[in-house]
Amino acid sequence: MRMTATPETPAPAAASYEPTDRTVPSRSRARARYDRETVHAILDQGYVCHLGFVRDGAPVVLPTLYGRIGETLYLHGSTGSRPLLAAGRTDPGLPVCVTVTHVDGLVLARSAFHHSLNYRSVVVHGTARQVTGEEELRRALDALVDQVVPGRSADSRPASAKELAATAVVRLDLAEVSAKVRTGGPNDDPEDLGLPYWSGVVPVAPAYGMPVPAADLAAGIAAPAYLAEL
Amino acid sequence: MRMTATPETPAPAAASYEPTDRTVPSRSRARARYDRETVHAILDQGYVCHLGFVRDGAPVVLPTLYGRIGETLYLHGSTGSRPLLAAGRTDPGLPVCVTVTHVDGLVLARSAFHHSLNYRSVVVHGTARQVTGEEELRRALDALVDQVVPGRSADSRPASAKELAATAVVRLDLAEVSAKVRTGGPNDDPEDLGLPYWSGVVPVAPAYGMPVPAADLAAGIAAPAYLAEL
Repeated sequence: MRMTATPETPAPAAASYEPTDRTVPSRSRARARYDRETVHAILDQGYVCHLGFVRDGAPVVLPTLYGRIGETLYLHGSTGSRPLLAAGRTDPGLPVCVTVTHVDGLVLARSAFHHSLNYRSVVVHGTARQVTGEEELRRALDALVDQVVPGRSADSRPASAKELAATAVVRLDLAEVSAKVRTGGPNDDPEDLGLPYWSGVVPVAPAYGMPVPAADLAAGIAAPAYLAEL
Repeated sequence: MRMTATPETPAPAAASYEPTDRTVPSRSRARARYDRETVHAILDQGYVCHLGFVRDGAPVVLPTLYGRIGETLYLHGSTGSRPLLAAGRTDPGLPVCVTVTHVDGLVLARSAFHHSLNYRSVVVHGTARQVTGEEELRRALDALVDQVVPGRSADSRPASAKELAATAVVRLDLAEVSAKVRTGGPNDDPEDLGLPYWSGVVPVAPAYGMPVPAADLAAGIAAPAYLAEL
C-alpha cells in the first residue's frame, strides 16, 4: 500500500539510486547499499526520522514523523522550529538531510575495540518544500498516520479543512539516497579468539506492549485487529 | 557509574541547563525540559545518537555511538565522514547538533489530526573536538562500550596503543542542552469523544533477544550475567 506510486511520483525505471560524492562513505564502503528495495524496506519499517537542516550557519537535528509514498518522503513539520516551517514555504526550499536508523543487534567482541552494532540506516539528502495543495496534504497526512500504524488512517476521523490548514508537512524527493547495513557476528582479531571473554550478538528490536485504551474510551470499542499486526 | 565526574568535568552546581534561543522550541513549549536529571536519564538509556554537522553548506545527519561521562558526551567518529574527522582534529572544532530519541508509545486519537507519539528526546548544540590524549581516549572508549552494555568494558580485552590511535572519538560538552518529553493519552477534541474509533496508546520499547554466541566461541564460555540486565 505504501509503495503505490502517485501521479506526481511515477515509479522510476532504475533499480538503484545513483551514488554521489556525498552518498559514498569514506569508511565501511562495503556496508553501503543503493538499491531501492533495500532503501524502501528500511524506510517502511520505521516512522521516526532525524531531520537535519542549517540555521544561522549551525546544524540542527530534530526527530519527527515521516511517511513514504513512492519516491517521496513526507515529513511532519511541527518540530518546534520556526526556520524549518518558514523556509519550506517558498522556493528554493530548505536543504535537509533525513536519516532513519534501526538497531538490530549489539555486537560484543573479545576486544573492546571491535565492539559494534548491527544496524540498517538510510540517509537522504535533498530539498524540503512545504506541501500546500489540499489533496496532496490529505494524502501526506494519511501516509504519516499509516506509517506508524498501517491501516489506521481509514479507521479514524479524516482531517477537516481547518485541521489540514494547520498541518505543516514538507515533501522530500528520494533521489540522493544511500543505505548502510551491518549484519553478522563480531570480527575479532585471530589472536584474540582464545581469550576467555564471551563473544556474540544480542538481538534488539522494538517491542509493542498491550494497547492501553484512552481513559474516556466508550465501552464496547475493542482494540482493532490491525494493532495485533504491529 | 556513568555519572561519575572526571577531573575534566566537575559536577556543575546548577540543577538545570540554561535555556538559550535555540533550545527554546517555538511549539509545544510545555514539553521542554532543562533539568540535568531528565537530560541525563534520557541520554543514559540510549547509545545511538544522530549527529548533525554542516558540510559544504549543507546539513549531514549520521547515526553513531555515544557515551556519557559527567557533563561530556563522547561520540564515535568513525561515521564514514572525512570532514567530521578532519574538522574535529584542530581548533576551533566542528559545530554539531546531537540528538537522542526514545519512542515510548504510539498515540492513537479518534481523529487522524491528533495522532502522536509518546517520546523523550535530548538535543545538544555545541562544538565537537577530537580526543587525542591517550588517557582520555581510553576512558572514552570504555564509556562507549559501557553505554551499550553496562559492565562490558571490564569484561573484554582493553584497547592496545595501536587500537587507541586508530579510534576516532570526539568530545562534546553538555552545555546548550534541552529535552522534550510527551507522555499520556490522546488529546481528542471533545466533539470527537463519541466517535466509534478505538483510541489509546500502544506502548513501545526496545526488546533484547537471547544472546547468540559467536560461531567461533570456545566451549564453556557462558553468556555473562550482565547481559541479563539489558
